[in-house]
Amino acid sequence: MALLIRNGEIVTASTRAIADIRCDGETITAIGRDLEAPAGAEEIDASGKLVFPGFVDPHTHIHLPFMGTFAKDTYTTASRAALVGGTTCFIDFCIPERDEDPRVALETWRAKSDGQSACDYSFHIAVTRFDDAVADALREIVREGITSFKVFLAYKGAFGIDDEALYRTLALARSLGVLTCAHCENEDAIALEQARLLAAGETGPGAHHESRPPIVEAEGVHHLVTFAELTGAPVYIVHLSCAEALDIAVRAKHRGVAVTVETLIQYLLLDKSWAERPNFEGAKYVMSPPLRDATNQRVLWDAIRHGAIDVVATDHAPFDFADQKTMGRDDFTKIPNGIPSLENRVELLYTHGPAAGRIDLHRFVDVASTQPAKRFGLFPRKGSIQVGSDADLVVWDPARRRTITASEQEMNVDYNPFEGFEIVGGADVVTVRGEVAVRDGAFVGTIGRGRFVAREPNAVG
Amino acid sequence: MALLIRNGEIVTASTRAIADIRCDGETITAIGRDLEAPAGAEEIDASGKLVFPGFVDPHTHIHLPFMGTFAKDTYTTASRAALVGGTTCFIDFCIPERDEDPRVALETWRAKSDGQSACDYSFHIAVTRFDDAVADALREIVREGITSFKVFLAYKGAFGIDDEALYRTLALARSLGVLTCAHCENEDAIALEQARLLAAGETGPGAHHESRPPIVEAEGVHHLVTFAELTGAPVYIVHLSCAEALDIAVRAKHRGVAVTVETLIQYLLLDKSWAERPNFEGAKYVMSPPLRDATNQRVLWDAIRHGAIDVVATDHAPFDFADQKTMGRDDFTKIPNGIPSLENRVELLYTHGPAAGRIDLHRFVDVASTQPAKRFGLFPRKGSIQVGSDADLVVWDPARRRTITASEQEMNVDYNPFEGFEIVGGADVVTVRGEVAVRDGAFVGTIGRGRFVAREPNAVG
Amino acid sequence: MALLIRNGEIVTASTRAIADIRCDGETITAIGRDLEAPAGAEEIDASGKLVFPGFVDPHTHIHLPFMGTFAKDTYTTASRAALVGGTTCFIDFCIPERDEDPRVALETWRAKSDGQSACDYSFHIAVTRFDDAVADALREIVREGITSFKVFLAYKGAFGIDDEALYRTLALARSLGVLTCAHCENEDAIALEQARLLAAGETGPGAHHESRPPIVEAEGVHHLVTFAELTGAPVYIVHLSCAEALDIAVRAKHRGVAVTVETLIQYLLLDKSWAERPNFEGAKYVMSPPLRDATNQRVLWDAIRHGAIDVVATDHAPFDFADQKTMGRDDFTKIPNGIPSLENRVELLYTHGPAAGRIDLHRFVDVASTQPAKRFGLFPRKGSIQVGSDADLVVWDPARRRTITASEQEMNVDYNPFEGFEIVGGADVVTVRGEVAVRDGAFVGTIGRGRFVAREPNAVG
Amino acid sequence: MALLIRNGEIVTASTRAIADIRCDGETITAIGRDLEAPAGAEEIDASGKLVFPGFVDPHTHIHLPFMGTFAKDTYTTASRAALVGGTTCFIDFCIPERDEDPRVALETWRAKSDGQSACDYSFHIAVTRFDDAVADALREIVREGITSFKVFLAYKGAFGIDDEALYRTLALARSLGVLTCAHCENEDAIALEQARLLAAGETGPGAHHESRPPIVEAEGVHHLVTFAELTGAPVYIVHLSCAEALDIAVRAKHRGVAVTVETLIQYLLLDKSWAERPNFEGAKYVMSPPLRDATNQRVLWDAIRHGAIDVVATDHAPFDFADQKTMGRDDFTKIPNGIPSLENRVELLYTHGPAAGRIDLHRFVDVASTQPAKRFGLFPRKGSIQVGSDADLVVWDPARRRTITASEQEMNVDYNPFEGFEIVGGADVVTVRGEVAVRDGAFVGTIGRGRFVAREPNAVG
Repeated sequence: MALLIRNGEIVTASTRAIADIRCDGETITAIGRDLEAPAGAEEIDASGKLVFPGFVDPHTHIHLPFMGTFAKDTYTTASRAALVGGTTCFIDFCIPERDEDPRVALETWRAKSDGQSACDYSFHIAVTRFDDAVADALREIVREGITSFKVFLAYKGAFGIDDEALYRTLALARSLGVLTCAHCENEDAIALEQARLLAAGETGPGAHHESRPPIVEAEGVHHLVTFAELTGAPVYIVHLSCAEALDIAVRAKHRGVAVTVETLIQYLLLDKSWAERPNFEGAKYVMSPPLRDATNQRVLWDAIRHGAIDVVATDHAPFDFADQKTMGRDDFTKIPNGIPSLENRVELLYTHGPAAGRIDLHRFVDVASTQPAKRFGLFPRKGSIQVGSDADLVVWDPARRRTITASEQEMNVDYNPFEGFEIVGGADVVTVRGEVAVRDGAFVGTIGRGRFVAREPNAVG
Repeated sequence: MALLIRNGEIVTASTRAIADIRCDGETITAIGRDLEAPAGAEEIDASGKLVFPGFVDPHTHIHLPFMGTFAKDTYTTASRAALVGGTTCFIDFCIPERDEDPRVALETWRAKSDGQSACDYSFHIAVTRFDDAVADALREIVREGITSFKVFLAYKGAFGIDDEALYRTLALARSLGVLTCAHCENEDAIALEQARLLAAGETGPGAHHESRPPIVEAEGVHHLVTFAELTGAPVYIVHLSCAEALDIAVRAKHRGVAVTVETLIQYLLLDKSWAERPNFEGAKYVMSPPLRDATNQRVLWDAIRHGAIDVVATDHAPFDFADQKTMGRDDFTKIPNGIPSLENRVELLYTHGPAAGRIDLHRFVDVASTQPAKRFGLFPRKGSIQVGSDADLVVWDPARRRTITASEQEMNVDYNPFEGFEIVGGADVVTVRGEVAVRDGAFVGTIGRGRFVAREPNAVG
Repeated sequence: MALLIRNGEIVTASTRAIADIRCDGETITAIGRDLEAPAGAEEIDASGKLVFPGFVDPHTHIHLPFMGTFAKDTYTTASRAALVGGTTCFIDFCIPERDEDPRVALETWRAKSDGQSACDYSFHIAVTRFDDAVADALREIVREGITSFKVFLAYKGAFGIDDEALYRTLALARSLGVLTCAHCENEDAIALEQARLLAAGETGPGAHHESRPPIVEAEGVHHLVTFAELTGAPVYIVHLSCAEALDIAVRAKHRGVAVTVETLIQYLLLDKSWAERPNFEGAKYVMSPPLRDATNQRVLWDAIRHGAIDVVATDHAPFDFADQKTMGRDDFTKIPNGIPSLENRVELLYTHGPAAGRIDLHRFVDVASTQPAKRFGLFPRKGSIQVGSDADLVVWDPARRRTITASEQEMNVDYNPFEGFEIVGGADVVTVRGEVAVRDGAFVGTIGRGRFVAREPNAVG
Repeated sequence: MALLIRNGEIVTASTRAIADIRCDGETITAIGRDLEAPAGAEEIDASGKLVFPGFVDPHTHIHLPFMGTFAKDTYTTASRAALVGGTTCFIDFCIPERDEDPRVALETWRAKSDGQSACDYSFHIAVTRFDDAVADALREIVREGITSFKVFLAYKGAFGIDDEALYRTLALARSLGVLTCAHCENEDAIALEQARLLAAGETGPGAHHESRPPIVEAEGVHHLVTFAELTGAPVYIVHLSCAEALDIAVRAKHRGVAVTVETLIQYLLLDKSWAERPNFEGAKYVMSPPLRDATNQRVLWDAIRHGAIDVVATDHAPFDFADQKTMGRDDFTKIPNGIPSLENRVELLYTHGPAAGRIDLHRFVDVASTQPAKRFGLFPRKGSIQVGSDADLVVWDPARRRTITASEQEMNVDYNPFEGFEIVGGADVVTVRGEVAVRDGAFVGTIGRGRFVAREPNAVG
């Protein structure tokens, strides 16, 4: 297998040059002018196009069991969706039941993914209980290349952990060089607010964000960074949604705490009024943290530009409107949380980021590919276009235009939260380790080509 | 002319890979494995070495007339010093007298530099007066490729400008896509504090920092970012030295003002106690802003790591201790301000940065090469290792060790403020557009090879 | 002359008790239960009423020459308005021309006020130029009991002073124990913004606030507190209007700078939309700093409650709409700045403060009477109900209701900016040093009874 | 019983005047000049003296069971100590066991205090568990005049409550108009830090503050204010000790959360080096929150002056060094927490406050008497000198000088943490509801005269 991409404008997080890219086997072997094609190489003309490293989504929930149902996408449908959207690698959250051995949960996740994916993937392992047995299991899991933990400060009674478990998880993570992801909302506060709202008859989707206001997320972030500072462990704040939480995270960075901040594409483009749409339409926009006041969007974009936010991900969690979201028709607390966006993250970020002048192309690549790869130990295999890296490449046509619609999507879910959004640019060709998986914007890849990527622990406090 | 650097670990602001670099003429043409050497190419074995893009110092004062004398380095001595230290391009400040046509000043600077430099260079043009004639001259200067302005909020009676001139300069800069650098200290406050201290008999070098405390710098920064926000012009804060000023700059970034922050290598490593050394030794450490309390150093390093500080420069301004610094023996306000550090910036930053675990290699390259190049329109010619860029390369041996001493330096000045500092790593080979200018750490280049680099206006508000 | 006020609920900044107040001559001599009336005393039954110390307005402009015209109120009309509104003492700004001896200006002010006022008053002296002669004059003026200075950082070409004058004024003030008031807006920035707006055809009243945005006021405050910290002089920020400026002031307080913050009643109740009213009606609401976004009102009320704001004043500056405000019909920069509110401050603050639950009665008395008296050396003569204080008393009926209308006002101006505002409570009786000046809400006092109050320097840095 | 105090300079939180005070029975009946003495009145000449309202200490632990022992002072010894120190009323914390009915605990406290105290007192009731039965008990307790709650976010396994209990307690408090006091340290974080330190062999008193760093207190404050904002309940932060926690509290005040901040006299004067004294002497200074870096002292004093801190209390908790503190000789976690300061608070605050120029006399009275009285519903009976208030008066001689020593103290404990501190000023005479209890600095009062003071709920969110 060999590939030569000619004359594209190669853009990484820091470089930008027109050149050819040669790939031998699965790997990039040279970048230069007028390179000779290897024998039998497929040649792709990228003149007038941009060439990006494959995008990395570090935050997905594929076929997640949640509230008695499952997120709809399988590794097959999710990976197809990822690839047509330019994402060539994602990291999925493996979440054990509270009393389950994490290794057993991991087997479940492996069973869902082995041979099912068209693109590469890795796992985070959630810590939903902490004792010596769990610690032993975690050490073994880290040795297998799953080098990031996840903790929930939210979801009372489901996945959340108490402060002792948090402290001990972080101490273990630090000793192993593992980065700990955290969902930062105070679970007890939310449960009580939910009860208060339901008791007051506020049962609709619009009550969801009322039950988890920005101060609850800010409190979660403050809690997390305090424990990070105490233990010296680096932490990764998932799905930060608002100025209040960002302010706490930034202050922590400024006093030397090792904090990485992730926001989601939806927080940059949607506000809470979407969750207040009539006829239960708002349920399509119920997620946690919830959508916020529109004023936060400018704050988040500024933070991406100047570096306070490091990563833009999806928290992809697709639930059908027709028969899943509707579980909460009479009680917003029963609406499965989450929206689909794995397929659309990159094109939305491109359209509203570099194409709109909010960030430059380097920062676009950085937050959607390079930083996720680096923070989670995928770099230099992923996240860059350089010699020796996996030939995960995206040939991007800035001249493409399209309108998002659920009717044309690869994601296995019956709606798209960005229905009708106009898009600028798009992926012409996407490769997975040197094999073309998307051509002219359509999936032409191979289910089963995608592989689990073992990662080295590389987190530094 | 051709060059092949084999097997080095190429590190840019975002990439890192072991590969060969081929240069044809003055330009990088390919990066790959087992590249074929062009005919007649010099081959350099970089196995076990790092290869960095040539470092860029955006803040120097070569042969600056100041306080009735001149900074000692010429373009010849400065460029030799830059190159042995790994810096392959610097941007010097051309500073007109208050009533001088800036084009005339520029001729003076060209006369100093044409044919005198071993490495490439460019100019910033200082705005020391603003009227319609000056504005016309500035437009012409920008068209010639000098696309950055400099204003002084300090130096009463010399170079400082008033608020109307500041506003109009920024408005012009914005319209031209020019980035405006600013020295942020309140000149009048300092003049009065100086008078107060002298009247109180405090005439020694240690009074210098007393006369310009952190709040005066913070006030200057607050002033600047207010005008930047009013006019929509992007601004570049030169030589930020302390937490108080950083705090104001960061707040401005967070509300969307286009602010770039530069600190200097000396603020990261020296504190004000150096300026209080006996026997007038402190005069060697008199600069503006002055050295600060040691607590600021941790703040500045953290800010480099998490991106609040964008650039590390030198403000290189060498004055001999013996007969220049001594002009202020009886009156600290007559000590020429400045220290030499052009030769040592990169090695000091490497030693105390990546080698000490404070920042990673990518951030090191970013703040010392890529960001200065990008902010000032030198990229992609400078600041990166990529196809099409100038072959300004540094082969860096991490195993080198040395001790800084004035007796061995290329800089034309009779002391080194870092005398006795232990250094880790160093440049084996440095190239200037494909020609080897440093070999085994010693200068072997050509005076006159260095060229003025015209830049495109690229600043965005 | 003797007076006995029976059974009122006496409220000071810290005390609250039902008791009788006995006054002999001009002074309070006893507070107690069932006090015996002095011979010939007038007895006032205050059962069911509140008794407050006379309110103090530290910020008025009586018959101020401004923009070629005069503020309309004389000491006679102003003092009548003050008294019916419950204000028994005001401090007026004496503002010399730039090249005028301040003692001459003071003579002008004395000529306007001697024998013309029904209530007591004092002066601040503005420093519009600073040199040794001015300094001598200021020392003399302070000895005469005018113990507060005023500086303008705004009003280019009129009253503003440069940084050297600011520094020297503050240093002098500190040495004399004098408090320096400052108008904190950057004059040059505003002048340029005004020119920009006029050039763009924005000539109406709504452009006034566009020309002086919050960041310009914040910049002024930052500038002032920096100089206060440098010189160790206490400062008093007049008419603070917005969150951005408050934030800077509060940070300064927190690092130990001696800052007093005054806001105006209008900033608490009006927003900038009033200045955008059609038919040039907006001109009635043109003042500096300008009215702000409504979001600032909550911030200012909170700041009053928790002590970040110390004083609520008026900046009373009445200009007729018909023939004064209209001077700026074609150019907003020619609209005389200011609104009348001397008569309404106390009732508006009561209605929207304690009567609405935003602050308690003690804080109401504190910010409108006690703090102005204390900060400016009027205490203990003014600002309190205690033995030995001037018998300046307000018997307040919380049951009164009225609607503000210009047609019934004492102020000599042809509109009221609060026209139609509903009022809760009001002054039944107001006394001036033991003499009843308001009875049943109507003026019954004596023109000429009001006296200049000499003050002791008492400011501490 | 009648009393006439002649010619003292009466100072309250806002007033200051030389006058006589007449008391009939237990109450102040008149303040005036040359008052006639009631029949049989004791006359005290206060010429040249200050007269303050009796000071109020809202934070004591009298005979508290703690760690298997008891705080040493009884109501008898504590009230004698309070009175000679100028404190005429204190509020003690009644702390139920976790599974104890709060009414039973209250009976225990009543049994300790009834007839045992020489001065008045009241109780806070701690909420150490929350369920419907507890809520009913609390409602009953509030009806009995105990209108303030206390929660501990610290002390794992002893008194701490979880977030659901915190939320419900605050919601109940808000509905009842009750103010909730909170000990703000994260209990789990501390327990783990303690275990870590002990495991590392750090067993001495100096490890105590290592185990509870400022960020842990700041986290507790952040947690509390979040719940206060969610529930709309006013909160009172007890014993705030450091800049980090103050910063969070102040931000909450600024966004409108009803937060009262208390610090302790010891945090103003002692730093953590005292807890590091050799020979286990440091154990005398073990308290929670612990003593901090000396830099915090200036921050706390500034905050008192400008109003960010509202109350200065003691957290009086006396444990003998000889046989109680020594319980922790081999394990710092077993050292009983607390120091005695009830007797010394007022004189220390006077000496280092108004006598040293850090705050004025009004603010001194405010934070040590008036604010505690007002915040907790004791006003207007306590905390002021005004008609109708209890005649709790302190005649203070500013000319007194003494040195603190345990050998002369009334407190029943074998050391004084301020041993050797020089004192300026002191109480000559102290009265308890009109009866002289201290004369010439010595206790002459009556055990049993002190009464429980029932309070009205008055807290506003």
